[in-house]
Amino acid sequence: MAPSTPHPDRIHVTFHHDGRTTRLETRTGESLLDALRSAGVEVNSHCNGKGTCGKCRVHVVHGDGEANERERHVLGGLVRDGWRLACQLDVHEDVEVTVPDARMAQVATDGTMPDLELNPVIVRGKACLPPPGLEDQSPDDERFAEVTDLELPYRFLATLPDALRRTGFCPSYLYRTDRGEVVRFFDEDVDRTDRPLLGAAVDIGTTTLAVYLYDLETGRRIGTASALNPQRPYGADVISRIEYASAAPGNLRTLQRLVAERIGTLAVGLAERNGFSKDDLLTYTLAGNTTMMHLLANLPPKAIAVAPFIPVSLSARTVWADELGIAAGEGALCVLLPCVSAYVGADIVAGVLATGLDRRRGAPALFVDIGTNGEILLATDHGMTSCSTAAGPAFEGANLLFGMGGVEGAIDHVRLEDGDLAFTTIGGVEPAGLCGSGIVDAMAFLLDTGVVDETGRITDEPEALPAALAARVVEHEGQAAFRVTPPTGAIPSGILLTQRDVRELQNAKAAVRAGIEILIETSGTNAEGIADLYVAGGFGNYLDVRSAFRIGLFPPELAGRTRMAGNTSGIGAVLCLLDCRLVKAASKAVSRIDYIELSSDKRFTDHYIEAMMFPEP
Amino acid sequence: MAPSTPHPDRIHVTFHHDGRTTRLETRTGESLLDALRSAGVEVNSHCNGKGTCGKCRVHVVHGDGEANERERHVLGGLVRDGWRLACQLDVHEDVEVTVPDARMAQVATDGTMPDLELNPVIVRGKACLPPPGLEDQSPDDERFAEVTDLELPYRFLATLPDALRRTGFCPSYLYRTDRGEVVRFFDEDVDRTDRPLLGAAVDIGTTTLAVYLYDLETGRRIGTASALNPQRPYGADVISRIEYASAAPGNLRTLQRLVAERIGTLAVGLAERNGFSKDDLLTYTLAGNTTMMHLLANLPPKAIAVAPFIPVSLSARTVWADELGIAAGEGALCVLLPCVSAYVGADIVAGVLATGLDRRRGAPALFVDIGTNGEILLATDHGMTSCSTAAGPAFEGANLLFGMGGVEGAIDHVRLEDGDLAFTTIGGVEPAGLCGSGIVDAMAFLLDTGVVDETGRITDEPEALPAALAARVVEHEGQAAFRVTPPTGAIPSGILLTQRDVRELQNAKAAVRAGIEILIETSGTNAEGIADLYVAGGFGNYLDVRSAFRIGLFPPELAGRTRMAGNTSGIGAVLCLLDCRLVKAASKAVSRIDYIELSSDKRFTDHYIEAMMFPEP
Repeated sequence: MAPSTPHPDRIHVTFHHDGRTTRLETRTGESLLDALRSAGVEVNSHCNGKGTCGKCRVHVVHGDGEANERERHVLGGLVRDGWRLACQLDVHEDVEVTVPDARMAQVATDGTMPDLELNPVIVRGKACLPPPGLEDQSPDDERFAEVTDLELPYRFLATLPDALRRTGFCPSYLYRTDRGEVVRFFDEDVDRTDRPLLGAAVDIGTTTLAVYLYDLETGRRIGTASALNPQRPYGADVISRIEYASAAPGNLRTLQRLVAERIGTLAVGLAERNGFSKDDLLTYTLAGNTTMMHLLANLPPKAIAVAPFIPVSLSARTVWADELGIAAGEGALCVLLPCVSAYVGADIVAGVLATGLDRRRGAPALFVDIGTNGEILLATDHGMTSCSTAAGPAFEGANLLFGMGGVEGAIDHVRLEDGDLAFTTIGGVEPAGLCGSGIVDAMAFLLDTGVVDETGRITDEPEALPAALAARVVEHEGQAAFRVTPPTGAIPSGILLTQRDVRELQNAKAAVRAGIEILIETSGTNAEGIADLYVAGGFGNYLDVRSAFRIGLFPPELAGRTRMAGNTSGIGAVLCLLDCRLVKAASKAVSRIDYIELSSDKRFTDHYIEAMMFPEP
Repeated sequence: MAPSTPHPDRIHVTFHHDGRTTRLETRTGESLLDALRSAGVEVNSHCNGKGTCGKCRVHVVHGDGEANERERHVLGGLVRDGWRLACQLDVHEDVEVTVPDARMAQVATDGTMPDLELNPVIVRGKACLPPPGLEDQSPDDERFAEVTDLELPYRFLATLPDALRRTGFCPSYLYRTDRGEVVRFFDEDVDRTDRPLLGAAVDIGTTTLAVYLYDLETGRRIGTASALNPQRPYGADVISRIEYASAAPGNLRTLQRLVAERIGTLAVGLAERNGFSKDDLLTYTLAGNTTMMHLLANLPPKAIAVAPFIPVSLSARTVWADELGIAAGEGALCVLLPCVSAYVGADIVAGVLATGLDRRRGAPALFVDIGTNGEILLATDHGMTSCSTAAGPAFEGANLLFGMGGVEGAIDHVRLEDGDLAFTTIGGVEPAGLCGSGIVDAMAFLLDTGVVDETGRITDEPEALPAALAARVVEHEGQAAFRVTPPTGAIPSGILLTQRDVRELQNAKAAVRAGIEILIETSGTNAEGIADLYVAGGFGNYLDVRSAFRIGLFPPELAGRTRMAGNTSGIGAVLCLLDCRLVKAASKAVSRIDYIELSSDKRFTDHYIEAMMFPEP
């Protein structure tokens, strides 16, 4: 028989995703994005295949040529490493790609993951001791230490005699590698090899908690979960939380309990939904801003809120899970990552680990995490410099007339389509307001279309605009406004972006930009010399980078060098969970990070005013 | 005017006692004991001035000649150091003496006290820190550590910011010298110099708890208190306590709570009766036998009770008072002294410190602590050897028909007076039974008078005895017995010492003596070479040494070399309280103490049988 020849139109896409490899047949010329979607793979694409959002990136193992101009613009340096956008990759030959998990992508991307060795803080051990006799009467603890070189903290010492005798002096146990101390003996199964050791990395956001559950012995991610930070009723931002915590005795403890309990509920729930139990959960690593870390650790945050902004402690700290009241297995530890200053927290330090900036060599890189505060860090060969700008909550969708968080119904993206404004909402439901990424898109839209000029003024000559846009320029309570959506019964005015909203956004972006400029100035480099711009955080996840550059949030020289780094706080916490030596690396990184207090920096006002203007088209 | 000549009969006694110096006039020829008593000084004298019990010893500063034969016999080597018996010292010239506190006498006696520097584990500190500013934003913990070189354990970290700001960054605090950690900031008075730092040394006896309260900054003893060990309802001896603790979950914790709470109650009560508060009480040092230490620390003692007699831990350990549930001021620590083996406990290690045996140079010394077990230790130039003999409770007044503890109504001393038996009782009340020292006295009496022969048999020819004694030899339930007290309504038989009681005592003393002989044999010395015999413990306190030698409890060569060492467990705990470096010395001592397990020692039976006989007169 002659060998079968491949059908010229029958080509195959092989993709690795979520731990499995799938091979599917596709038609020549189809985009990889469509091929993946037809196979049921959920691929992010905020721009709907336009090649602008960078969300659908895949890592090519082999096949189908070079990245195009758009991919090079969006992916920057990643193109060199073999990354492409699925929406821009049209399949003409067999291809094999890895489709990254959206959240973990950067771990693979930034070169950290390949170096990662599993080295969790709590590991399993087993030892066989010479049994005691009248000739060898040494006490249990010495007998155990003699063979294992491990000690027992007082709180676990009482479990030793039973653990030895139940097992014929061959106990199985868990111990912490950072100290050489047993934290637990297994009391049911002699080896307990049927149970995993689980750990949870936690990103404690002011608004949202995210938990990443891992098998600490395989490095496998079991799942993720998130929830609103239950401290939210006590204030939307860190300052109001601090004020509440400081207002009366017991308030701090209230906030501490709320977050600790919710973290435990999330992690234990995740474990249980995957067939495991609370008892399997043995380590937490936790990162958040400095205030969140104070509230978690029950440290009074009062002095963080007022000049000169002094935290109680910035150090990394390992405590028992039950000291914090976080649900976990017996003997579980919580590792709190270190902070840099009152407003550059463990979330940023985790981000430094996640992006490898602490080991950065060669051209400088900029790291930006935008929320109520914009934390900015510049890494060079010589060390790192950081600052925090009080951007205000505009980028979180707050303080604007129709601003809202990134939840269902929020307009998350806005674009020009057929000469008029088109938008998408989270969940595809009726629009209820604008979240951060939608606001930045809308602002870019207004600048692109001339509705707003570079000074930030909404035009008073709407008649000069195309008719569709002119109709959207309205007056609202004595100020100019732009109508993003038409009036409805629920929202009689329609969703508006008012002149005051534009000013809020101008202030916010000017604060971030001024911080960036001061760091660049301080480091003695210039924007052109910066090779990578990492944009971290939830906002960065959804941001249309092009819009961000359009409004002047970032120096224009960095366009095309942007890396959407995802939840770097969570990723950094995951790294420390899987390799506890990175906690020391984090503390070492902190010692190499200078902090510039912008509120006392004479250069700030100049840069701020300068950054207030929008760039010309 | 001519100078006044002193009246030849007017001589003066100057004495130092309880921190005060008193001068009183006395008549020539009066005994010092009578002079002191007439001045209201409470001087112990169990033998009522006969020069046999050694309790009334005083340290002579100057005056009144040489010790007599009796004093040399009772005081042994102490005579060389200037000690005399007040009852034997007749005043013929001006004398100046120090009257030791009964309990602390040995601290002064054995040469330990003069070396003692106050170095408690928790001390006071004060520091003034450079206040923070926008140019110096280091966190509170680093700012504090920078100046003081002290860290804060996580549990106290939360108190730091307030402590700094309330005091204008000049906080007063307490810190532990063994670790360089702050344990508490003062929150009311800036300096708190009006409050003392108190510590309590605790001797945890199986039967009795003794607490010694000290001012840790002056070394002044504030007072002592004692109470029955509240674990007693769960067993009179360590074995029955262990059985109870091991019988059901929760039982161990019950025993732990009982003793911890009673210790706290005793110490706090003592503080309050002296005008102080629980809050002033900052350190406990605790010594007891190995089982008591296990029960205190909530460590399962089960394996101590059965061969091969394995403790959970023998190490010294410092834990928070609230971990043990012992009432104390915030930040208080409990220092648990180390043990040697399952049956040579921290009480013996404390005794080694109290008697200075760990630093012993020159001729060997023997240390004996007699209770249910007789713990014995021999110190030589080359190290120490110890053993424990299961003497049984005869020396504690138990297991004998009319045996009882050393409480009110117990016959504590027996002597020959006018050809018949005379006795004293504790408290001087109607006799109810015989305690340990009374039993030993009675036994010596029976041997001296020929009522019992050297084999331990009560004579079956009472008619050969003087009439008064012959009348006391009776039959009781088919066995011979000696009637110590006449029949009364309450005790129709009278208080008896039966043939079986004599056998119990024989067994007990043979066990102790066999242990002593084995230690001497092991060390390669002989009884003649031993310079000092320290007799420790409550029993030793009341024991008539002459009686003890008479029944053969100790090798006869050691007569005249005996030192009643008092509650050496408590004294050693006091030493560690006042100078925490001695805790390390205790651990070092433990490493130099060999332990001989008598239950597996082939020599034991021979020595035991040999020691069963009573010495000939």
